[in-house]
Amino acid sequence: VTYCLGLRLRDGLVLLSDTRTNAGLDHVSIYRKMYLFEAPGERAVVVMAAGNLSVTQTTIAKLQHDIDAAEPDPKRSIMLAGSMLDVAEIIGNTLAAVRRDVADKMAPSGQSPRASMIVAGQRRGGQLRLFLIYSEGNFIEATEDTPYLQIGEHKYGKPILDRVVRPDTSLEEGRKVVLISMDSTMRSNLSVGMPLDLAIIRRDECRISHRERIEPGDPAFTALSEAWSQALRDGFAALP
Amino acid sequence: VTYCLGLRLRDGLVLLSDTRTNAGLDHVSIYRKMYLFEAPGERAVVVMAAGNLSVTQTTIAKLQHDIDAAEPDPKRSIMLAGSMLDVAEIIGNTLAAVRRDVADKMAPSGQSPRASMIVAGQRRGGQLRLFLIYSEGNFIEATEDTPYLQIGEHKYGKPILDRVVRPDTSLEEGRKVVLISMDSTMRSNLSVGMPLDLAIIRRDECRISHRERIEPGDPAFTALSEAWSQALRDGFAALP
Repeated sequence: VTYCLGLRLRDGLVLLSDTRTNAGLDHVSIYRKMYLFEAPGERAVVVMAAGNLSVTQTTIAKLQHDIDAAEPDPKRSIMLAGSMLDVAEIIGNTLAAVRRDVADKMAPSGQSPRASMIVAGQRRGGQLRLFLIYSEGNFIEATEDTPYLQIGEHKYGKPILDRVVRPDTSLEEGRKVVLISMDSTMRSNLSVGMPLDLAIIRRDECRISHRERIEPGDPAFTALSEAWSQALRDGFAALP
Repeated sequence: VTYCLGLRLRDGLVLLSDTRTNAGLDHVSIYRKMYLFEAPGERAVVVMAAGNLSVTQTTIAKLQHDIDAAEPDPKRSIMLAGSMLDVAEIIGNTLAAVRRDVADKMAPSGQSPRASMIVAGQRRGGQLRLFLIYSEGNFIEATEDTPYLQIGEHKYGKPILDRVVRPDTSLEEGRKVVLISMDSTMRSNLSVGMPLDLAIIRRDECRISHRERIEPGDPAFTALSEAWSQALRDGFAALP
């Protein structure tokens, strides 16, 4: 399983993913699930992936191939697409095509692959956008009412998002809340695990303003996790 | 969907269930999912059910039928069984038999019913016991390490249980934490809903020490829910 989430706040986009990939409990690996595409000052796009690894890796490889083409096609390169909506369209179409191809291969074993992606970014002159792309290539977008999107193991970490995240939440608070949401998920599902990849795109910077990998045992993350546990216990103890 | 949970604490058992049953989103009803069996001072058993309603209702009806038999059989009546372990065995066997029967009926449509139950209680001279019974009739039991069990939509309400529930949690705190766990679940899954059924069996009383139905709009529950939301937001705001 995977857990990735993104916030679309007034001041920017906050993205977080885990890195644990497993095929059964006895085959666990670390794979990056967050991919960064950037032409600083012109556009920044973050893609996070959940689901069948062969589908998501091939999708990213095809996107990269179209970016690197000798004569890139604006209809296929997410670095040339005219808007973030076009970027979501390109990624959705690529994901759906790869999924169909893999599904054909898996059909004899009665299986069908699933995969989904979060796509976030901004291009110069455009708005901050945050999309969730389904296996079939269609997508939804974060709004003022629901300024966050999740893929993968989303349930454990949802209650805190519902209570804290508003469009005017600051980036600093947004960073804390995605880490807490991830922490709750990792405590409950062993197949979601460290290290974590975190990225922030500040409004109108059109670049990856901040990126970090949080390793197991990271002192700041551990302190945040313990402080939150204590806050929950204290808050509970103080209830009427 | 359903959400039921039980705590096995040093001082007693705390059980909570919702009452919403749905066949699709456009067919929603209220059904009691908590069943109380009691011979005050001798034994008290609480059964909570999740899953296919035709399976769980028929299972409860058969259990009641065997209790009410003209010459009740201690091997079949949960009110005569020699231990709570035997009670769990009887309920597991009954559930599995009903499920097999319904599965045969549903097979032509390619479906198979699932159902699970939480069984909690104490008989005079015995211990407080809390079991989770699977569709197949096998079961697991709550322990000192994991003193709670859940069935149905268990993910949203699990993080708070992991952080708060210990064997020495008081019954009053236990009552609060199950209500908060339920509240988080109802906020995130519309198919879990009020009213709620709550029961407490105090250690060695061997009766249903406390029972209540919490109706929508209940002032105390609403106040608890709001206080918890505020505690979460305050705790979050105070993080380092």
